[in-house]
Amino acid sequence: MTMPAATRPLRVGMIGIGTVGAGTFRVLARNQATIAGRAGRGIEVVVVAARNLARAAGVVGTGVALTNDPMQVATHPEVDVVVEAAGGTGPAREWLLAAMAAGKHVVTANKALLAVHGNELFAAARAHGVALAYEGAVAVSIPIIKALREGLTANRIEWVAGIINGTTNFILTKMRDEGLGFAEALAQAQALGYAEADPAFDIEGVDAAHKVTLLAANAFGMPVRFADAQVEGITALQGLDVACAEQLGYRIKLLGVARKRDNGGVELRVQPALVPATHLLAHVNGSMNGILVKGDAAGVTMYYGAGAGSEQTASAVIADLVDVARLDGTNAAQRVPHLGFHAHAVDDTIAVLPRAAVHTRHYLRVPVHAAQDIEAVGAWLAAQQVPVAQVALATDKALPPGSGPQVLVLTDAVAQATVDLAVHALAAHKAVAGPVTSLRVEMLDS
Amino acid sequence: MTMPAATRPLRVGMIGIGTVGAGTFRVLARNQATIAGRAGRGIEVVVVAARNLARAAGVVGTGVALTNDPMQVATHPEVDVVVEAAGGTGPAREWLLAAMAAGKHVVTANKALLAVHGNELFAAARAHGVALAYEGAVAVSIPIIKALREGLTANRIEWVAGIINGTTNFILTKMRDEGLGFAEALAQAQALGYAEADPAFDIEGVDAAHKVTLLAANAFGMPVRFADAQVEGITALQGLDVACAEQLGYRIKLLGVARKRDNGGVELRVQPALVPATHLLAHVNGSMNGILVKGDAAGVTMYYGAGAGSEQTASAVIADLVDVARLDGTNAAQRVPHLGFHAHAVDDTIAVLPRAAVHTRHYLRVPVHAAQDIEAVGAWLAAQQVPVAQVALATDKALPPGSGPQVLVLTDAVAQATVDLAVHALAAHKAVAGPVTSLRVEMLDS
Repeated sequence: MTMPAATRPLRVGMIGIGTVGAGTFRVLARNQATIAGRAGRGIEVVVVAARNLARAAGVVGTGVALTNDPMQVATHPEVDVVVEAAGGTGPAREWLLAAMAAGKHVVTANKALLAVHGNELFAAARAHGVALAYEGAVAVSIPIIKALREGLTANRIEWVAGIINGTTNFILTKMRDEGLGFAEALAQAQALGYAEADPAFDIEGVDAAHKVTLLAANAFGMPVRFADAQVEGITALQGLDVACAEQLGYRIKLLGVARKRDNGGVELRVQPALVPATHLLAHVNGSMNGILVKGDAAGVTMYYGAGAGSEQTASAVIADLVDVARLDGTNAAQRVPHLGFHAHAVDDTIAVLPRAAVHTRHYLRVPVHAAQDIEAVGAWLAAQQVPVAQVALATDKALPPGSGPQVLVLTDAVAQATVDLAVHALAAHKAVAGPVTSLRVEMLDS
Repeated sequence: MTMPAATRPLRVGMIGIGTVGAGTFRVLARNQATIAGRAGRGIEVVVVAARNLARAAGVVGTGVALTNDPMQVATHPEVDVVVEAAGGTGPAREWLLAAMAAGKHVVTANKALLAVHGNELFAAARAHGVALAYEGAVAVSIPIIKALREGLTANRIEWVAGIINGTTNFILTKMRDEGLGFAEALAQAQALGYAEADPAFDIEGVDAAHKVTLLAANAFGMPVRFADAQVEGITALQGLDVACAEQLGYRIKLLGVARKRDNGGVELRVQPALVPATHLLAHVNGSMNGILVKGDAAGVTMYYGAGAGSEQTASAVIADLVDVARLDGTNAAQRVPHLGFHAHAVDDTIAVLPRAAVHTRHYLRVPVHAAQDIEAVGAWLAAQQVPVAQVALATDKALPPGSGPQVLVLTDAVAQATVDLAVHALAAHKAVAGPVTSLRVEMLDS
């Protein structure tokens, strides 16, 4: 049953030599001996596709073939594994399909590509018996895909909840620490390079939704269902709610959440949510990422690290390459399956629950005409079947100058449908002086 | 190069069916279909060795052979892999050696065994071409061994620092939160089941030293050098220092630290140390564990979870079994090497640095006769080449009733030899009214 070890180097073709590609090339070169010692064989970049060949040559030097044509890399006869580091979802899909059809393993950190085309790509990888590795697609420095599908493989995963977008976490940290509004904090993030000139992808929650889609697929062995995820960003978040949450003992974080419910459905959602200030996740600040995983045997574990960066992503891409270097030549049953399960590639019956069925605690902020309206609001909500757990008035410390009184409500767990109905109806209540804000309070201990 | 997938179940022999063994059996049974789906084949316990056969039968039911003789399990002809869940270092060593000599893979969560006999056991595993897996030996619920040797395999690991003993972290959390002394906090931990009746192993730092020894071996590819570790527990820690550290913006945690120095030597040590209150590690409280890893590409990542418990340990043991189930039948070069490196099994040249050479920041508490002695103490330390960064008087809030004035000093990084000399000499200084306390301030960002 024993095969001779593959001792020739693993030959890598890279598509793209920008931030991720150059970082990967640099770390492979710098830690060459160490990585070969761990992989049991060398890992050599033999060909690179780039738009700007002169710039690419500046990165990779001589001894590496260069081409303008990514398809040449994808189908190159001397390449064992293709690293897609170009980004985008259109051509990248075609390159990976071509590479896998040519029998090559592929490695990518392209979360958008996998969130959108993952079902097709994973099916192609299975059909061709090759690995499609993607550790760098989620929270780059943190080996969370490996933790989920290998480290916690004994567990029925109950939920995953994480801060998986550094830009928005930087903005939320600034809003809390310095009392800034969203627009000011975003401007600072842009000035410091933590946010793109066009930040929509991050601040609207799309990037986090790509990542939580992949986490859910791994945690539950379900298809990639990005189109069904409920996605809410932080553009509408007010500094007032950051301060009111603080008064109640909470911090607001943009969370990606995937939760398997007892009925078999999965909540798949991104939204700003309240996290208890005493919880470790509340202390994941600045541009850092932190991901909680609840398993039935391990309990809650957390994984923390940088969610972006050239060499941070390289760390993940190279970990995938080392896995490929070891397991190239084994059959697919001896490799870790793409979404965790050999027995069924994915369980097509697992669906995403609609917004109305999401079940969490809630925070409500209700502007009222006078402080004594607090009693009427509490009583009215209870009458609407909203399970009120706590009612308080916002203190002067939480309120900006000139603000009218605000009733703050924390609920027990309740269906989103009930909350949406109550929030809508509350607008007509005579005590209410303005739009009601509702945010989820994530339940991270059970 | 492709072999047929092994489709018959992996047959497990277990030695010991106490807390760890029973938890493993229970989780394997409960999540049987899921685990088989992930492993690509079933995992079946076929024989169990136990002292009390009636009790063992109560756990495993019928259909599993029982024996009083662990050696029968170790050499059982129908067993593919032996799980050692009995503990202890004497007979367990012999069982594992016998199992490996018989060509069986072995899985253990026995940190003491590996810290003491690891070099011999890993060599035997290599000689016989079998896996010796030990994810459960460190911070059970957290897949930290997998993170270090696979997830971060691209990285030159610079240091590892962690809270890796739940008992002492529970005690330290009580001391800080409730202002208790060590003895009171220990008594509470014992009453609540977080500390053994004989807690020496935990509170003297030995358990943490076993674990950090294994982390160092993995991080640096060095031999297991438990005998060379510097081990200091928390039995001498005073509530006064917990309060004074708090005043300066720090919390005291029992840390296991392994740090590779530029000279190639490794600091390997366990001690109570100051951690900035703003650092995520300072918020790892109660009986939980948290481990920081600094890699040259990934930067700092952190891993958090329960460090003890029946099913928490089972989570790790079963992850190892699934790895074995997949890779049984491959050759050793296709499996992850025991201490991370194929190229050299271990690098024998890597030695542990002596205490005198350890280089950290320090906290000193100097009892003085009068508050104005602060200037003399600061000046005297600077004259002794101690790089003083901050000097303060303990406030009334930090001091217990009746305490004399205390000068608090934080230093920049300095060799332990310099600090030891200064602390010793300071006792003779006329301003000094009692024994000087020194604690390390761990440098966790660089």
